[in-house]
Order: sequence, then structure tokens, then C-alpha cells
Amino acid sequence: MTTTLDSGPSDDLGVAGARRRGAELERSIRERPGTFRALTGDRPTGRLHLGHYFGTLQNRVRLQNLGVEMMVLVADYQVLTDRDVADRLTERVEDLVLDYLAAGLDPGRATIFTHSAVPALNQLLLPFLSLVSVAELGRNPTVKDEIAHSRQSAVSGLMFTYPVHQAADILFCKAGIVPVGQDQLPHLEVARVIARRFNNRYGTPSNPVFPEPEALLSAAPLLLGTDGAKMSKSRGNAVALAATADETARLIRGAKTDAERHITYDPVARPEVSSLVLLAALCLGRDPHEVAAGIGGRGAAALKALVTDAINDHFAPLRARRAELAGDRGHVRRVLRDGNARAAAVAAATLAEVRTAMGALY
Amino acid sequence: MTTTLDSGPSDDLGVAGARRRGAELERSIRERPGTFRALTGDRPTGRLHLGHYFGTLQNRVRLQNLGVEMMVLVADYQVLTDRDVADRLTERVEDLVLDYLAAGLDPGRATIFTHSAVPALNQLLLPFLSLVSVAELGRNPTVKDEIAHSRQSAVSGLMFTYPVHQAADILFCKAGIVPVGQDQLPHLEVARVIARRFNNRYGTPSNPVFPEPEALLSAAPLLLGTDGAKMSKSRGNAVALAATADETARLIRGAKTDAERHITYDPVARPEVSSLVLLAALCLGRDPHEVAAGIGGRGAAALKALVTDAINDHFAPLRARRAELAGDRGHVRRVLRDGNARAAAVAAATLAEVRTAMGALY
Repeated sequence: MTTTLDSGPSDDLGVAGARRRGAELERSIRERPGTFRALTGDRPTGRLHLGHYFGTLQNRVRLQNLGVEMMVLVADYQVLTDRDVADRLTERVEDLVLDYLAAGLDPGRATIFTHSAVPALNQLLLPFLSLVSVAELGRNPTVKDEIAHSRQSAVSGLMFTYPVHQAADILFCKAGIVPVGQDQLPHLEVARVIARRFNNRYGTPSNPVFPEPEALLSAAPLLLGTDGAKMSKSRGNAVALAATADETARLIRGAKTDAERHITYDPVARPEVSSLVLLAALCLGRDPHEVAAGIGGRGAAALKALVTDAINDHFAPLRARRAELAGDRGHVRRVLRDGNARAAAVAAATLAEVRTAMGALY
Repeated sequence: MTTTLDSGPSDDLGVAGARRRGAELERSIRERPGTFRALTGDRPTGRLHLGHYFGTLQNRVRLQNLGVEMMVLVADYQVLTDRDVADRLTERVEDLVLDYLAAGLDPGRATIFTHSAVPALNQLLLPFLSLVSVAELGRNPTVKDEIAHSRQSAVSGLMFTYPVHQAADILFCKAGIVPVGQDQLPHLEVARVIARRFNNRYGTPSNPVFPEPEALLSAAPLLLGTDGAKMSKSRGNAVALAATADETARLIRGAKTDAERHITYDPVARPEVSSLVLLAALCLGRDPHEVAAGIGGRGAAALKALVTDAINDHFAPLRARRAELAGDRGHVRRVLRDGNARAAAVAAATLAEVRTAMGALY
């Protein structure tokens, strides 16, 4: 089920190189989608919002519908990397699964599972930790960044080893592709390095244990929150997928714009207005410049009305499905139980291979 | 099955305090041995020698025979903390189990198991890593020491997080006591800290998830190798439990002594001679001063003859059992399989409790 591309030197961390390889990957996926398995996922920190939808969720559903086998991880332990307690975990996890299902992830094809329910996946952390040095862990830019933004007074061992968990998440199912944003490229590189080192140390050249996963770099549009800052649940500046039409209207009505009445699409000079234009364009499936031209001199109020209607129309079916699914928590739990069982079987097979390769046969 | 003593402030890291608590523990064990579970173990790096036997193995058998439930861990992943590859792992693990069985550990009562076969134990590493800071890990004196003596050019993530694995090893089975040498007290303290923090964060005061394990500080005699240095397999200065009588005689014949003909027991001034005297005394169950006085002016040759005979007589039954067991590798594997299954059941129960306490219920 799994394949990787032979796409030249693997140490090219440059974004340009990743984009080029991503384009090649897209072609290969379209030619033979059934040979790819992808790993994606989220930390269950709350309901998903439109930034998540247009940034990643839509793309996951697209890949699934092309025929890629999707492994969708609810990274419940990773909630603890930057906060002390994962509170209301059951509720948050189930909310996340509801968002997935409502958006079109199909549990008949996609495997939706939680980190904490797959011990054999987590065990990979131990051999993998032996393959990276403390110095390498400390240099990881994403970890450095997360440490800088951490709400904790001290950096926990879990955050410090976070890229190694991600490597286990990706490698346990031998995912050939990992849809990522640009900022996650260093994490993926850790998984590639660990795969390579494990294969060199324990595998045979003709029969490597792990494929080196490839980044499928998303061309995700940058959506700002209604206050003009990064869209984020904790800032209250994001429209949740599950929001009602009224909540959506209220949030968009309060969105920051600028002093110029004539609406244009110019993300650099007019980030707030342009983000609203882009949001409408994404919902309407139109070009943002055209959307802006259509509003023209009618100003921010007209733009906001258009955005609100566009969101509410576009997400009405998703929201209806979500409301229906939310009435059947038993279904959500079954989806997770089935996904966990499938992931556990995959993890057990990989762990058995790993133990055999390492000579731990007893 | 498990209990801990309420023995005053738990932050007393002093060796004197640990000895005092160890003595109290010994009394409690004698009074109600069936209420204690102990965790012990070894890294499978080769055959055990007389230093291991008199240092720890004999004590484990003693505790087992008192009625303490012994969990004996073959720490196969931890072989990777200070070397690149765990080679000949199956052979080394089976040799270790043979030494255990020959020494008197009874697989009907003791649970002998390997780290790599118990994923639910290893999963505890993730929540536990969230409870310690990188700074704390870096300060651990045992890790610092092991880093200083490491044969690797860079410190691996596995070595850096080693005390957290040990905490998982101890806490997965809620071991109330851990027989340790003085140098391992800091490791045990990490396990105690993690137990306390987990209980504070996720437990209730009346129903803590983890007991705080107590050190049972051994009064292990210091046996030197035949070259006067620390006894060590890699130095070739140690008599293996499994050595033949001839191998034993040859090693002891080559042992370093000193220029003084008259034999005395004076570990400080005459470490090499005194270590030989002590070895004979341990095998003979006699006082080392008496043993030395018995040799007197007959010199090192007479001492060595006595030591050789004492070892070979004392270990003859153990060696015979070991040879017999070595002929039935199937038995050794069954012991491990049974032990792994028992440990897996214990780990699954603890992990379920941990997930419940953390609210990861789905």
C-alpha cells in the first residue's frame, strides 16, 4: 500500500525543493493513488475552524477521494507538550472526530485513531530515541520555536522529544506522504533521518524497514483571524466549522477592516480586508480579485455580508451533517474504536518487523 | 500486592537516610513479605559474574524466597543507551535468563520479562516525559556520569531520557521496593518524583495512581576484578557465574596481589588481596578476617587456592543447574514468553488506569 518517490538528494531542506517534490508527488498520486498512504492529524485542543478547513482538512478529503489511504491521528498526548493538563479530553477528541466526519473523512476508508490507544506505535519512541542525539533535538527549529512560545515555565521532556514522536507517528504506518505546512518541514526531516538511520543500522539495502516519507507541501492560503492576527481558537478570532449561521454573522460583523472604502484584494498592503475577500473567494470557488471587484465601492459592510453568506452557504451541508452526527456519540466512539483497532494492527506488524530487524527475537 | 512505607519526608536523597529507610523496609518485608512487589533487572550485555551475584542476584533470590513478588526486567532497549547496536541480543538475553534461573529465581513466582515485549509499559514514557523538564534530565548525576563514560560520540536521546524509562519500568508494576546500589539512588528519585507529580496532577489524594517506590539500599560488598580494577565483563577481570572450574582457577591464579606475604583483610590498604579474601569469605559464609587469619603466612598462592576451591564448591550446584537448563533453550523461551505475557497484563491494567486518570476515555 505504501510507496515513496525516488526524488533525488534527501537532504534538501529548502522550501523550493520541497515544493518541486510536492508537485512531482501530486502527479504520482493522480497516476496511482492506491499506492500511497498519508499520515495527517491534529492535537485535540478544541473545535476546528475555517483556517484548519481550508489549510488542511479540505486537502485530506481531496486525497482520500483520489484514493490515497489516509491515516488521521488525534495526537492526544501531544496536547501535553505545551500545557500541564489535557482537560476535557474526551469532549475535545470527540469534537475533533465530528469535525473530521462532517468534513467528509470517511471512516470506511480513512483510519481515525488516537495516540494513546496504540501502545505499539508509542514503543517505537525507544529505538528511535537511540538514533538521534540530544544536540540534534535541541537544534530542531520547530521545537525551538515551540519552546519560545510555550506557556510552561520549563521545557518538558515531552516537548523536547516531540519530533521523535512525530517520526513514530509517521513511520509506524510507513506513510509515504505527509501533507505539511512549510513550518513542519524540519519535523518531517527528523522522521526521514530516523528512517534512514534505522534502515542503515538494522535493515538490508534491498529491504529497508521504513520508507522515507515525503512532504506534500500544501499551498494553503493564509487566512487571518477577524482581529487581523493569526487565526487561533484561543484568540476567539476564528469562525469554527461548527459555528451557527448567527455566530458566524456576529464574528464577521466584528472583523477588523481598514479606512479605505473601496474593496481590493492586496494581501500585503491590506491584510485584514484581503483575508475577508479570500475567505469569500474560497467559499465561493472564485478568484479573490474578482470577488473584490464585485464589491468595489460598496465598502466593508457589503464585503462582510458577502463573506457571511458565503461561509454560511458553503458550510451549511457540513454543519447539518455535524449536527446530525453530534446526536449519535455512540457512532463517534465506534469510529474511534474501529480506527484504534486498525491502527493497532498496523503498529503491531511494524513493531514485529522492528524487533526482528533489531534481533530482539525471544 | 503492593505497598509503600510512610517513612517521612521523601526528598531526603542522602545515603544515610536511604540506609535508615532500607533497614525499616527490611523489617516490614520480614513482617509481611506478601504485600511487597519489587522491580529489579539488568541490561543484557553478557553473562553475569560473581560481582553481580553477590551484589544483587543473591539478594533477589533471598527476597523472592521471603515471599516478595519479584519483577525481573531484561532491559533490552537500554543496551542502546551507550552503544550503537545491540548485537547478539537473543543469545545475550537467553544467557541472562539462564543465569537468573540457575541462581534460583523461580519463574513460577518471579516474572522475568523483556522491555521490548511490553508496549503498554513503554507507552508510559510519553505521559511521564511531560512531567519532567529538560533541565532536570540534564542534571541527573547518573546520566551525567554515563554520558561521561559513553563510548558514543554524541549523547543519544535514549540515554538522555533513561531515568524516565526507569521510572516507567518501576511504576508500570507499581513496585513498592527497588533494590538498588548507592549510585542508582538518583534514578529512583526520578521515579518517585514522577509518581508524585502524576498523582498530584491526575489522581485524587485518597486514591493515588502510583505508590512512591522505596529504595532497598543494598549493603553489597565491593568485589574488585582480578586486576584490582572494577569488576567488569569487558575488562576480562571477572569470574562468570557460568565459568568452568578450570576457567575459574586460571582467572584467580592470574589475579593481582601485593608484595606482602602475610595475608590480612584490610580493604583500604590492601584492596586486591582483601577482595580475594572477601570472595572466599562470601563463598564460605565466613568472616573475612577469619579467612585471612586462616591463611596467614602461607601467602598469596595458598589464598588463591582457597578462593578457587571456595568459588568452585559454592557455585558447583548453580553451574550444574545452568548447564542442564542451557540444554533446553525451549524452556528458557517459555519462561520469557510467560513472563512477557504476565508483565503485559500488569502493564495493560496500569495503562488503563493512567488513561482513565488522564481522562483519555474513548
